[in-house]
Amino acid sequence: MRVDGRWRRTIEREGDHVVVLDQAALPFEVRWLALRTLDDVARAIRDMHVRGAPLIGAAAAWGVALALREGHSLEHACAVLAATRPTAVNLKWALDRMHGARDAEGEAQRICDEDAAGCQAIGKAGLPLLRDGTNVLTHCNAGWLATVDWGTALAPIYAAHEAGMRVHVWVDETRPRNQGLLTAWELAQHGVPHTVIADNAGGHLMQHGKVDLCIVGTDRTRGNGDVANKIGTYLKALAAKDNHVPFYVAVPASSIDRTDAPFAIEERSADEVRLVAGMLDGRPARVRITDAPVANPAFDVTPARLVTGYITETGVVTQV
Amino acid sequence: MRVDGRWRRTIEREGDHVVVLDQAALPFEVRWLALRTLDDVARAIRDMHVRGAPLIGAAAAWGVALALREGHSLEHACAVLAATRPTAVNLKWALDRMHGARDAEGEAQRICDEDAAGCQAIGKAGLPLLRDGTNVLTHCNAGWLATVDWGTALAPIYAAHEAGMRVHVWVDETRPRNQGLLTAWELAQHGVPHTVIADNAGGHLMQHGKVDLCIVGTDRTRGNGDVANKIGTYLKALAAKDNHVPFYVAVPASSIDRTDAPFAIEERSADEVRLVAGMLDGRPARVRITDAPVANPAFDVTPARLVTGYITETGVVTQV
Repeated sequence: MRVDGRWRRTIEREGDHVVVLDQAALPFEVRWLALRTLDDVARAIRDMHVRGAPLIGAAAAWGVALALREGHSLEHACAVLAATRPTAVNLKWALDRMHGARDAEGEAQRICDEDAAGCQAIGKAGLPLLRDGTNVLTHCNAGWLATVDWGTALAPIYAAHEAGMRVHVWVDETRPRNQGLLTAWELAQHGVPHTVIADNAGGHLMQHGKVDLCIVGTDRTRGNGDVANKIGTYLKALAAKDNHVPFYVAVPASSIDRTDAPFAIEERSADEVRLVAGMLDGRPARVRITDAPVANPAFDVTPARLVTGYITETGVVTQV
Repeated sequence: MRVDGRWRRTIEREGDHVVVLDQAALPFEVRWLALRTLDDVARAIRDMHVRGAPLIGAAAAWGVALALREGHSLEHACAVLAATRPTAVNLKWALDRMHGARDAEGEAQRICDEDAAGCQAIGKAGLPLLRDGTNVLTHCNAGWLATVDWGTALAPIYAAHEAGMRVHVWVDETRPRNQGLLTAWELAQHGVPHTVIADNAGGHLMQHGKVDLCIVGTDRTRGNGDVANKIGTYLKALAAKDNHVPFYVAVPASSIDRTDAPFAIEERSADEVRLVAGMLDGRPARVRITDAPVANPAFDVTPARLVTGYITETGVVTQV
């Protein structure tokens, strides 16, 4: 997708290393990070320079390839990478694929190419849900920044935009990490009209007929249709149900977990709530908004009964 | 209530003027503002140095008293004050009372005294809803900062705390203006255990049995039981219903509007979303988190069907 007018992917091979768009610096600075070692990749995932379930999988695949070239064992590489983030099923899925691969670099590249193609297919599958003038609400960032290219939840929106439809996106800020600001940034790169709202506002907008459709991504969707996604997704799904607004989840095959393993909900650092990033006097800065005790669960689970349908690479289904 | 250990009210007469606790400076600085004129009071309400529906009513009453002493007409004073904030019914209620008063200063003081006594009565009425060990979730600030003393939604919590019960409060951050940080600050002044959470987290906590009870305030409650309150209240009420968590609204008589007038939902400045206040290098500072287009509806309406009961000065009722 476009970054400052140039067509890029969020993760690209460059000679003997990979470069990733640094999402911890966005939307305030566009910065590319070179990842040369297993540790570089593990740190990038853990500290969320690389984020979004599909992209985490792609980055982990490259992490294995780089680790093998450093002389680490496959087991060591997978153990280090698996420990970086607990919720995204794509991470485990990518590591499993790397386990079975003969050509690690080729496999990592294939995972990236397949992710981009899969996201484009999700866009095509979701396109019929949109009309000229549709108002979509989305939560967090499940755009191309969260994948290798195109995104999941935003892929149908980009497909509609490219097809010449006027689509407007309500973008949940998505506290505590404000990934909605990433969504606003990437939509702006493509000229898609959008409006940022506090996470509190979506229900009110739905009550007043200002949302035609919700589309969100997922970090892990179970075989029974329950959806783990960014904290707050469940609240929007409840509001959608209460106001008869269709609620769709864009779910690549790699995010579906057919096991019955319980969701491990990551409790992240209190500083994510306490520190807010922005610009001050032309420079990135973080203010400390409170010293109070804080809890910070990073995901919630939206039960299948609140989901209208799942947008997959092969079409829209009402049961995964 | 206590401020830095000293017993104070949020608005107090001091000689020929009134002083108010500056809520735009909290929780980062404790600062008292002297209000000497009608314009001082109107600006304090409009710029939210004074906030919370009951306190707005009390401040407006003093605004009328100060205006008359300045030589303004009653009509002028009421017109200026009525235009400051559109949603809170208490503002209109207080101005109506001042209209009929012979002794303006005496009436303003009575409104303050009655508000404090009424809030204490709400605390007493709501006390039986709490037990030792209860976890309460609240949204925005409907504590003593929002009233003259004791608060509305927090009054039962203070009553329980004073009665020796261990009560813990989940405090919604309440973007965009982060009034939850005011709630955390005032609970800390009294030693009431609390945890700040992103507005997105409450549904997840309810799904996991970590919330026994929700109590919120209201800016205006209609005769049919529909509740206008800070944006996002509706989402928590939906989650409470979905998880069988009782959802109570603390509502002083002055916040009940027995007319069928539609709710006027205030759309506030985009800068409330774009600028986030906190501390940086030991000083208050605001960072700009986005330049994207923003919408900022300040209130939403929670339908009566989602409300378990209303805590009033005279007891808990299931129909106002």
